[in-house]
Amino acid sequence: MSGWLAIAGLGPGDEALITPEVTAALAGASDVIGYIPYVARIAPRAGLTLHPSDNRVELDRAAHALELAAQGRRVVVVSSGDPGVFAMAAAVFEALEAGPAHWRNLDIRVLPGITAMLAASARAGAPLGHDFCAINLSDNLKPWPLIEKRLRLAAEADFAMAFYNPRSKARPEGFKRVLELLREVCGPDRPILFARAVSTPDEQLRIVPLAEARADMADMRTMVIVGSSMTRIIDGPARPILYTPRSVTVSA
Amino acid sequence: MSGWLAIAGLGPGDEALITPEVTAALAGASDVIGYIPYVARIAPRAGLTLHPSDNRVELDRAAHALELAAQGRRVVVVSSGDPGVFAMAAAVFEALEAGPAHWRNLDIRVLPGITAMLAASARAGAPLGHDFCAINLSDNLKPWPLIEKRLRLAAEADFAMAFYNPRSKARPEGFKRVLELLREVCGPDRPILFARAVSTPDEQLRIVPLAEARADMADMRTMVIVGSSMTRIIDGPARPILYTPRSVTVSA
Repeated sequence: MSGWLAIAGLGPGDEALITPEVTAALAGASDVIGYIPYVARIAPRAGLTLHPSDNRVELDRAAHALELAAQGRRVVVVSSGDPGVFAMAAAVFEALEAGPAHWRNLDIRVLPGITAMLAASARAGAPLGHDFCAINLSDNLKPWPLIEKRLRLAAEADFAMAFYNPRSKARPEGFKRVLELLREVCGPDRPILFARAVSTPDEQLRIVPLAEARADMADMRTMVIVGSSMTRIIDGPARPILYTPRSVTVSA
Repeated sequence: MSGWLAIAGLGPGDEALITPEVTAALAGASDVIGYIPYVARIAPRAGLTLHPSDNRVELDRAAHALELAAQGRRVVVVSSGDPGVFAMAAAVFEALEAGPAHWRNLDIRVLPGITAMLAASARAGAPLGHDFCAINLSDNLKPWPLIEKRLRLAAEADFAMAFYNPRSKARPEGFKRVLELLREVCGPDRPILFARAVSTPDEQLRIVPLAEARADMADMRTMVIVGSSMTRIIDGPARPILYTPRSVTVSA
């Protein structure tokens, strides 16, 4: 039997957000590979080997998955959210490009998932309902000045902005600088959403104006979304609804 | 029994890409409302009323859904892809904000789905594996100069770009101008993906350099993704893989 490799998205946490396509791939797998907390979401069963690995070893993990598939194993690499958004799909293709030629004959599929920004957006309303951008705020893999440049241009373009990896223990100052920059270019009243652990029992949503945003409102489990100039809040009896209308009537 | 309103994403077409959360909402619905081809994806059953409506009546459709929920019905508004990305969620909140105060007491949930750009990205590889933006190229609801401004700023920020609604019969010239602008700011070699009817039997993928891109490569069922300056192609025995590495090592 020939091996295959599926790079699958587990969504933000709730089992009800995992697509049947991903569930079927997991049911047919011999090996599941991924970052420890994501592999922990997979139920053990006979015939399935789980390969949890630590953060920041993405290329090693990718090469391991490719090698197992080349040996005839049925391998699923798991990411949270969508594997194509700041996750394992790009890492697998980087390893593929750098690896032995026979890997290019492998059956490799990417199975999309519900990415964190869309899960967070859904919970809050529809802040990404008009043009938007997604930026990874980690400077592990890119220079910090490029992050600031992109933030300024995105604000000038009046995109809503979704931020992945806003803050980590290794980079306590970066997100503080991001908030200062955003206050400068977007003004103090622009709404910002902190959506933590969306779709899990730990879920917490908070919407504040940029003037009140503090770096410690985000941690590694937080998705951050900043509205465009058009983004609005509807106050309701339960929680506020954050949304960006479909229309722009102002001049460009 | 009190009514509720769910705004649900059906994903790009394949049933295996519909989340169990959406399937459960549809199973509990008394009414399904949406654009004709999306409502056509819902199997009729006893106790379920289907309300298909035409394009460009989104606000009327949203108000209808809110009114039915206010009457105690269990209503699902269906979008393709994700309802929060250029789809019905923003329209429902626009109608909510403009409507009677009692609507604000309704139980309204947005149920995310696999949006077209992530389904297309998964099929092609991982072109959105680094920072990216999503732009609706329709000028029905925004002035054309704003589209051009955003394209130029997005290119300057070196985002990969995903384009929704690239081309329609009503706007045959717009996408041609977009391609000219992109060739000017991104150069002739930048890869562009045309992903048509992803995850359906009509699926077609084509990757060409911008120099070879023509407006008629896209239609209303096509998702278009333009790579960043870092986006690469791996040639394989089957089809080419398009991906954007996670790292940026050039200076900003």
